[in-house]
Amino acid sequence: MFNNIKPGQLLVISYALVDLVGTLLLTLPFASTNPGSATLLEAWFTATSALTVTGLTVVTTAEYWTFFGHAVILVLMQIGGLGLMVLATITLSMLGLKIHLGHRVLIVQDRNYFNMSGVVRLVRSIVLLTLALEGVGAVLFALLLPDVWSEGLIPGLMFVVFHAVSAFNGAGFDLTGHSLEPFRYNMGINLAVIVLVLLGSLGYVVLQELFLVRKWHKLSLHSRLVLLVTGIISLVGSIFYFLTEYSNTLASVPLTHKIVTSLFQAVTRTAGFTTIPVLEWTEPFIFLMILMMFVGASPGSVGGGVKTTTLGTTVLAIWSIVRGKKGVVIFEREIAPESVTKAFTVMVIAGMLAAASTLVLMTVEHLPFMPILFEVVSALATVGLSMGVTVKLSAFGQVLIGLLMFVGRIGVLTLIVVLTGIDKRRLHYMKEDILIG
Amino acid sequence: MFNNIKPGQLLVISYALVDLVGTLLLTLPFASTNPGSATLLEAWFTATSALTVTGLTVVTTAEYWTFFGHAVILVLMQIGGLGLMVLATITLSMLGLKIHLGHRVLIVQDRNYFNMSGVVRLVRSIVLLTLALEGVGAVLFALLLPDVWSEGLIPGLMFVVFHAVSAFNGAGFDLTGHSLEPFRYNMGINLAVIVLVLLGSLGYVVLQELFLVRKWHKLSLHSRLVLLVTGIISLVGSIFYFLTEYSNTLASVPLTHKIVTSLFQAVTRTAGFTTIPVLEWTEPFIFLMILMMFVGASPGSVGGGVKTTTLGTTVLAIWSIVRGKKGVVIFEREIAPESVTKAFTVMVIAGMLAAASTLVLMTVEHLPFMPILFEVVSALATVGLSMGVTVKLSAFGQVLIGLLMFVGRIGVLTLIVVLTGIDKRRLHYMKEDILIG
Ligand SMILES: [K+]
Ligand SMILES: [K+]
Repeated sequence: MFNNIKPGQLLVISYALVDLVGTLLLTLPFASTNPGSATLLEAWFTATSALTVTGLTVVTTAEYWTFFGHAVILVLMQIGGLGLMVLATITLSMLGLKIHLGHRVLIVQDRNYFNMSGVVRLVRSIVLLTLALEGVGAVLFALLLPDVWSEGLIPGLMFVVFHAVSAFNGAGFDLTGHSLEPFRYNMGINLAVIVLVLLGSLGYVVLQELFLVRKWHKLSLHSRLVLLVTGIISLVGSIFYFLTEYSNTLASVPLTHKIVTSLFQAVTRTAGFTTIPVLEWTEPFIFLMILMMFVGASPGSVGGGVKTTTLGTTVLAIWSIVRGKKGVVIFEREIAPESVTKAFTVMVIAGMLAAASTLVLMTVEHLPFMPILFEVVSALATVGLSMGVTVKLSAFGQVLIGLLMFVGRIGVLTLIVVLTGIDKRRLHYMKEDILIG
Repeated sequence: MFNNIKPGQLLVISYALVDLVGTLLLTLPFASTNPGSATLLEAWFTATSALTVTGLTVVTTAEYWTFFGHAVILVLMQIGGLGLMVLATITLSMLGLKIHLGHRVLIVQDRNYFNMSGVVRLVRSIVLLTLALEGVGAVLFALLLPDVWSEGLIPGLMFVVFHAVSAFNGAGFDLTGHSLEPFRYNMGINLAVIVLVLLGSLGYVVLQELFLVRKWHKLSLHSRLVLLVTGIISLVGSIFYFLTEYSNTLASVPLTHKIVTSLFQAVTRTAGFTTIPVLEWTEPFIFLMILMMFVGASPGSVGGGVKTTTLGTTVLAIWSIVRGKKGVVIFEREIAPESVTKAFTVMVIAGMLAAASTLVLMTVEHLPFMPILFEVVSALATVGLSMGVTVKLSAFGQVLIGLLMFVGRIGVLTLIVVLTGIDKRRLHYMKEDILIG
């Protein structure tokens, strides 16, 4: 059936098709609350943002879309978060169909797994883990927000499930109209979101190992590097937020709130939630956020960016050069030279793409530098934070940001492999490697 | 005498010593025009800016320093432009002393030459070429500026020589008080500066080949890549300036002036001269300038930045990946894999250094993002353009910018080699390579 299409190309085409279906559903008259229906651009931008779990919006999700619209966005977020191939596997498996090799290659490519053995079992455990964690999140939200049922059972259920799915998949969509700002002083919600987003950003390989292995020195090199870099970024980001915002946005709250809010913003850099609007932050933290967004989440997770392992590998490699060593060593193991090369390549490609997009967007939109750079990095790393320019963009700007989200979800390296045709040997080769990009 | 000091460390120490001597000379009471004398920080910043041929200033060169001060700056620019090792070789050679191997290694390292054979002859031709081109520049300036002798022969000579040396060495220092803005409508001066800066930015290897070989297909891979990338950046930069500034800073001048001014700014991105202040440009061009400064000049030249060959190599490498090719090929020759790895590494290290410095400076100085980023890249790439924040910096900020200029002149990779000890085999290994960084 698809004999003439390379597996990687099929992946991109599949995402584009789901994107198209989502777009069409959102253009239906009963998807939007305003008379008539949403424009094609509004629907496409929203569907793309949901499918790529980015969270940038040109219309206010809570007000603009109906219950049906919210359901479409919810499903798109879940599809995007799990990954199309995981869902296809489940469907085929439930229908009792055989999962052939070409399909396995796709799953590996879509989710960046190490190897292709036991794919179906792995996929099942991914789905179960996802649903379990999202379920726990929804229950927590229900317990922590007693007011949520005021409009009835169904809207209440939608509210807690929507935010649990949005948090675990790092989508950053909300039904409040103002991200999680209404829950700024609700420390329970803050902590629940921190845990959900953090777990979602680690990637299934790491989550699985954490559940099964549990001992630090028995974890794979990949998992230890992911945990180390994620920990350092979260800590540095929190401390920086705490110090720079201490007498700014954190001035009026007690110390525990200051600490939790700082941790919240450092962790949800991959999800795109805020409890304090970006525009109220100091410029140094906004710039740090641009850098942290650029780094993004971990490979095999729902998040984008160049990935924590890419940053870790390049920093270790530079440290090796400074110390005059040949190999890049951490935890008494050497990172494969091919992974090191790949890490530097991903950094430069992503940097060039962000710089070029920023230049084009600045020229076309006549908007200031920092908000545009912020928006571009937010889209490319599928973060969803914004300095408020998304709604000000021209149609051209919206299409460019939409395409960046799409590229960010697929990943620059995967996209390049797709353009050139997949090399199966390369996938096998990566078996013992760190995952990059 | 220096048996315990590695050659590379000697290089850095030598630059630091010259920097110190320059600083002390500028603190002499008769170096500055104001009563008393310049502060140590003002003197150090100015000496470092001159020695690294950057051109950033915390005081107005024309007004703040005396004729003696201008002479010190002139000599520092010439030392920095030629390179300390070239000068040391000439001195030893004139004294009839033997140039031993360790010294040859230093020259190679300081100026990024391909090999160590015929170093003395090469050094002589470099000095002759430099003096000849600076001489032609000075004569041109004298002819194009008849008013220059109004204050007498000596000040007139100083004026034309100072600007010729400043232009060919891409230093960007001026004696007008407002860069080359007074000559904004003098097309002759514009063109003379364009030619001097362009020749200075190519590097001696390329200049030598251009004078001796002259045929495109007989030029080395290195020279062809330098000319290609320099040409593309100059052209793209000019066209972008022309289009974005057409109805802004270029609105009131005739078409030839528009074209020359556009070319001027794209070319003197490595020198740091302006005919129109940076703050009057549109933001898109300011951002493009940040990117062009980051790229900088060519290896073995007086300019900084990651270098034209580094950009060329990374872009070609990415293009190879997109096309699914293994090797990086241009002009029917393959760039050595080691050069490709080095290019990506230089890009990432420079990018990280710029980002980290920007973050620190923003936090300390409480100045806006874009001017700080501009300043940091300008210092690290020894460009010398500014959005006007140099004078607003605290002592800490000035020291940081001064250190960035120093790192920029030595080069990140050289500095790393210096920290780790020089590997002679590595120098030999580079014999047939493209020069990176
Ligand atoms: K997101
Ligand atoms: K300069």
